Amino acid sequence: MKKARTLPVYVCRNIWKVGKDDPRRVIHALKVGVALTLVSFLYLLEPLFEGVGQNAMWAVITVVVVLEFTAGATLCKGLNRGFGTLCAVSLAFFIEFMAEETGRVYRAVFIGATVFLVGFMSTYLRFFPFIKKNYDYGVVIFLLTFNLITVSSFRVQNVLHMAQERLYTIAIGCGICLLMSLLIFPNWSGEDLHRSTARKFEALAKSIEGCIDEYFHDKDDKVSENKLDGPIYKGYRAVLDSKFSDETLASFASWEPRPTRHCHKYPWQQYVKLGTVLRHFGYTAVALHGCLQSEIQAPKSVRLLFRDPCMRVASEVSKVLVELAYSISNRRLFSHDALSDHLHEALQDLNSAIKSHPRLFLGSKNGRKVTETKHEKASSAVALPSLKTDTSVMLQWKSNRIADQPKNSSEQKQLRPTLSKLAITTLEFSEALPFAAFASLLVEMVARLELVIEEVEELGRAAYFREPTASDELT
Amino acid sequence: MKKARTLPVYVCRNIWKVGKDDPRRVIHALKVGVALTLVSFLYLLEPLFEGVGQNAMWAVITVVVVLEFTAGATLCKGLNRGFGTLCAVSLAFFIEFMAEETGRVYRAVFIGATVFLVGFMSTYLRFFPFIKKNYDYGVVIFLLTFNLITVSSFRVQNVLHMAQERLYTIAIGCGICLLMSLLIFPNWSGEDLHRSTARKFEALAKSIEGCIDEYFHDKDDKVSENKLDGPIYKGYRAVLDSKFSDETLASFASWEPRPTRHCHKYPWQQYVKLGTVLRHFGYTAVALHGCLQSEIQAPKSVRLLFRDPCMRVASEVSKVLVELAYSISNRRLFSHDALSDHLHEALQDLNSAIKSHPRLFLGSKNGRKVTETKHEKASSAVALPSLKTDTSVMLQWKSNRIADQPKNSSEQKQLRPTLSKLAITTLEFSEALPFAAFASLLVEMVARLELVIEEVEELGRAAYFREPTASDELT
Repeated sequence: MKKARTLPVYVCRNIWKVGKDDPRRVIHALKVGVALTLVSFLYLLEPLFEGVGQNAMWAVITVVVVLEFTAGATLCKGLNRGFGTLCAVSLAFFIEFMAEETGRVYRAVFIGATVFLVGFMSTYLRFFPFIKKNYDYGVVIFLLTFNLITVSSFRVQNVLHMAQERLYTIAIGCGICLLMSLLIFPNWSGEDLHRSTARKFEALAKSIEGCIDEYFHDKDDKVSENKLDGPIYKGYRAVLDSKFSDETLASFASWEPRPTRHCHKYPWQQYVKLGTVLRHFGYTAVALHGCLQSEIQAPKSVRLLFRDPCMRVASEVSKVLVELAYSISNRRLFSHDALSDHLHEALQDLNSAIKSHPRLFLGSKNGRKVTETKHEKASSAVALPSLKTDTSVMLQWKSNRIADQPKNSSEQKQLRPTLSKLAITTLEFSEALPFAAFASLLVEMVARLELVIEEVEELGRAAYFREPTASDELT
Repeated sequence: MKKARTLPVYVCRNIWKVGKDDPRRVIHALKVGVALTLVSFLYLLEPLFEGVGQNAMWAVITVVVVLEFTAGATLCKGLNRGFGTLCAVSLAFFIEFMAEETGRVYRAVFIGATVFLVGFMSTYLRFFPFIKKNYDYGVVIFLLTFNLITVSSFRVQNVLHMAQERLYTIAIGCGICLLMSLLIFPNWSGEDLHRSTARKFEALAKSIEGCIDEYFHDKDDKVSENKLDGPIYKGYRAVLDSKFSDETLASFASWEPRPTRHCHKYPWQQYVKLGTVLRHFGYTAVALHGCLQSEIQAPKSVRLLFRDPCMRVASEVSKVLVELAYSISNRRLFSHDALSDHLHEALQDLNSAIKSHPRLFLGSKNGRKVTETKHEKASSAVALPSLKTDTSVMLQWKSNRIADQPKNSSEQKQLRPTLSKLAITTLEFSEALPFAAFASLLVEMVARLELVIEEVEELGRAAYFREPTASDELT
């Protein structure tokens, strides 16, 4: 009895929730309703029905099947359907022409054989990754239309007329779909992809902040919260699971006509690439979260000692992520130097903090001598890392960047490890292995963040993001 | 000129490759060809055409649209299509009955309004996650059929007859599809999911072996190989990217009728869950690979010192993975104890190896005193970890397992960290932070592997894997 009363409440709440989560869904549903009503006028209004007759059903089918949520998906399906139908009609007429002169039985055999062959070949074609990704629907429609026309041609005399009418009505259906999806409250796959990419940065930033907060605070009372439905988990999960939706959105977005200032093809594939690099970065966030969940924890005293520098690195990382999210969502270039400088200063801070605690980090001369020779050989380029302090390295690095911005990417790549090495090579002899793992993950995170920054820069260049203005600097 | 000559070669190679990668594709393409030829007999053979007439086109459409690669996908689409059509026909007749008595203009308005409303509601329905996942296609077909029947009913007199014929032909089409997909060389989604799950374990095992080999061997000469197309990368990539395909296969598999010995519902969702846990494990493999690719490396001498125990842990991990793969692919239960024992013995080995190198791991009394009080409080349960050697802990752990196998899962969870702590708490003061990170990732990997083992055990129970026989033990 109680269940019967709660079910409608549950259903109503769900109905409300689906619409509230994304109000465009309601609009899309209304659009489909309007499009179907429009297309049903082909039957309902006398003059229109006289024009197209029973073939109006193809317009109805087209509207139901082609009208998708985003403009890109609709265009992709509509063009695939149109092109597939055209190809099928052409081939069907060629076959019809070939079979015209033969007798009835031979003709039946010929048609049967053609149907088999075309069915076999186009199904096989659908297994090719390239076709599957872009033209799968087109091949299905090709096969469908070809079969319908070829087998009907055996019974119906005026196939040419029939095919023509069908093409017209499909064109009407596609026209209504395109009108509805491109001109009336359009939803762009590209916009979705763009926004979801910016959101992923924000989610990661929140996730990392959450991790650090939890690591350095008393958490005995809320261990159970830190589970698979926590905000940390949700943050990086959204990034890790984004591969399929990114690729789908990018492939639909590439069908969308977009007015751009520079008349260039918008680099949707760069978003997919950025997503891959971001997932690569996200794996470190997972590992960091793993440090939190692990039963083996560094002693609290060690954690407290390095709380501030670690939190500074993490907050710089999350600041960079938020800045990148802002840069993407406002299509505005950012200053690579400013971002990296703060990041590396924070890294240096962590480095000095670790060096300034001799109680915990003993210089073991015995242990070192064993490895000295090989170690020195391997890292002769960064001899005396501890002497290269903030100023010298930072200045060298900055001057490199300013000197030849576009072509110094190889130097940058050589230089970045040098900077990270600074932090690492002096972190020897830590008291606690778990903290060592945590710190090295933070460093790894900064290194991977550099790759993310580069990809966003690349995206900014390819998509002609605008230069930051004075008002941007103020915000 | 040269390009023109290489293009056909390229195309031919691709055609050959698609078929060679999975010969079932050729068979499937042949099946579609045969099914289409069969259904075209409805047109080509006089007696059959007299039976169904022009409605035969619905059979053709059904075959083209419904016949999918796997039996589960075909069943899902076929049943969705059948059920959607049935609902649509019923509703259309109800509407027809309501509008019967009214005048022609009112009837047109009524039909238009109904089309709008049903279009709106079913499109909105498609946004519900549950519907989208299982019945999306059914709703589309419902909308399609409802519209076709309702708007035709305005022009055609005998709608009942038309709908009946259409249902027959769709049934014929579905029948041919089910015959082709269930009885003739069937491809089961469930089998695919089962096999791909086993393959993922093998891929991870290879990936981890590769990581360890590379870490402990001279790799100066092949750094460039260790890139995004190496076998290590491919191994874990296959696991990380499997979410979408796993979920799709599981949802299709749940439509498949499977003859099982125990008349139970096969636990396909458990495969999805196992996939999630396996991805969680895979993130550690990514982090381990990150240690390899990182520019900051532990000195070779340190690595050489711990080469054997580390390699033993890794080889035990990969052995467990291979064993689990074997267990899954042969649907055979495995011995949790045997697997875990070796694993933890290897972990103990690593632990002792680290303790046996005082040159590198100095017991710093100054540093320890600072943290002693808090540290002791936190880990009072594992006081004096170094005294609990292999024998005592292992025996206690074993006896727990043997005593009450089914219900000791909570104890296990308490116990596992204890074992891992042994390895961790004594790993203090390592010479090199990078190696510390590497070792702690190995330990983390073992901890997560336990979760994987548990999930596979759960799968074995739910899917009634058979007990290992004497012949299994020999292999």
